[in-house]
Amino acid sequence: MNDADVLRRLSQLGIELPPPPQALAAYVPVRVVGGLAFVAGQVPMIDGEVMHPGHLGDDISIEQGAEAARRAAVQALSALRGSLGSFDPIEALAQVSVFVAATADFTRHPAVANGASELLVEVLGDEGTHARAAVGVASLPLGASVEVAVTAALR
Amino acid sequence: MNDADVLRRLSQLGIELPPPPQALAAYVPVRVVGGLAFVAGQVPMIDGEVMHPGHLGDDISIEQGAEAARRAAVQALSALRGSLGSFDPIEALAQVSVFVAATADFTRHPAVANGASELLVEVLGDEGTHARAAVGVASLPLGASVEVAVTAALR
Amino acid sequence: MNDADVLRRLSQLGIELPPPPQALAAYVPVRVVGGLAFVAGQVPMIDGEVMHPGHLGDDISIEQGAEAARRAAVQALSALRGSLGSFDPIEALAQVSVFVAATADFTRHPAVANGASELLVEVLGDEGTHARAAVGVASLPLGASVEVAVTAALR
Repeated sequence: MNDADVLRRLSQLGIELPPPPQALAAYVPVRVVGGLAFVAGQVPMIDGEVMHPGHLGDDISIEQGAEAARRAAVQALSALRGSLGSFDPIEALAQVSVFVAATADFTRHPAVANGASELLVEVLGDEGTHARAAVGVASLPLGASVEVAVTAALR
Repeated sequence: MNDADVLRRLSQLGIELPPPPQALAAYVPVRVVGGLAFVAGQVPMIDGEVMHPGHLGDDISIEQGAEAARRAAVQALSALRGSLGSFDPIEALAQVSVFVAATADFTRHPAVANGASELLVEVLGDEGTHARAAVGVASLPLGASVEVAVTAALR
Repeated sequence: MNDADVLRRLSQLGIELPPPPQALAAYVPVRVVGGLAFVAGQVPMIDGEVMHPGHLGDDISIEQGAEAARRAAVQALSALRGSLGSFDPIEALAQVSVFVAATADFTRHPAVANGASELLVEVLGDEGTHARAAVGVASLPLGASVEVAVTAALR
């Protein structure tokens, strides 16, 4: 990818990259090894608080869930750039896992996960397309409604 | 793998590959990058409907869950062949994640996941063996009882 | 990694590697392919029984969950060494997924997952750091409270 191009698209979308997440004790925000960059699961944060905590199918709407997923994807991009110093070393995204805190009768996980997937493609273009798994989990760290994990391939 | 051999085994097992899943907006059925092929999470479909929707431990039996997992694995094979044009480029399967929609007191996730694992080994032989994680989730897209994600390594 | 160093650190920590898990029918404990080693999801076992079965937020404490996660991580190390014959071929860990059986209102998944992450870094040093995803699931095989899946990169 071209770092300047990606930064321009972020700017055009009005998205400011948050500071990259810090290393958290026993694990790291991004692990680069074997030609891949594994980004730790991102819980969407805004001003030091979880964005839209709760459960889909209960107290969180599809729109809120998608917004949370989009925010988590932005954080994953920030983590990648913070670790690599630039988007240049990234060949393409590989896989995105979207964990949605949801009730047993919730069925629209893809609509929530699209918040992350669409952001990644808007910002990264064709190289941002990815295989995806979206599942509904019982609960997430800090009460988040969404957690997004990204794997990218490096040149 | 040898494409003709795999097609013959599918035929011997009486399995017809469904049409490969189509690209769905923001994500793709298979992402090939870094020597790996990442297949998007497959929800078992039959005639345009989810096969065996529901939850293990509630309204879905082990046998139904295993059948759903088997169907999802067949779809993953179709997705791989649709993307690669043949099974030839596949060196071996790597990892299979089986997400089972389940109640809190369900414990037999491995028996459900075996529906996918056994199909993959029946069809692909030794090259179809894989590491596996099987977990019970709150809910899945479209109300599915099982979702299967596959990662393969390419030659 | 250096096999003798890792074994020494295990010994200093008073940790005895359990026998590596056996191949279980349709899947294998470790799949080595494409320069990566994928370890199957580990459910913590002790003397043939699941360690601390139950759910976080209900009948399992944070301390018990962390201990279960630590045990599962030790099993993953045993599986890796059993498959590779030594820790020498491992360049570094890549990714760790920690699935925590949890209630809908549980929020401290990271404290549970640290049981696995801290063990891996204590034993493997810098090469044991990893990206991590921790999520709360509805239920796990055998009623376990934790399941840990590890991916490592090989030299």
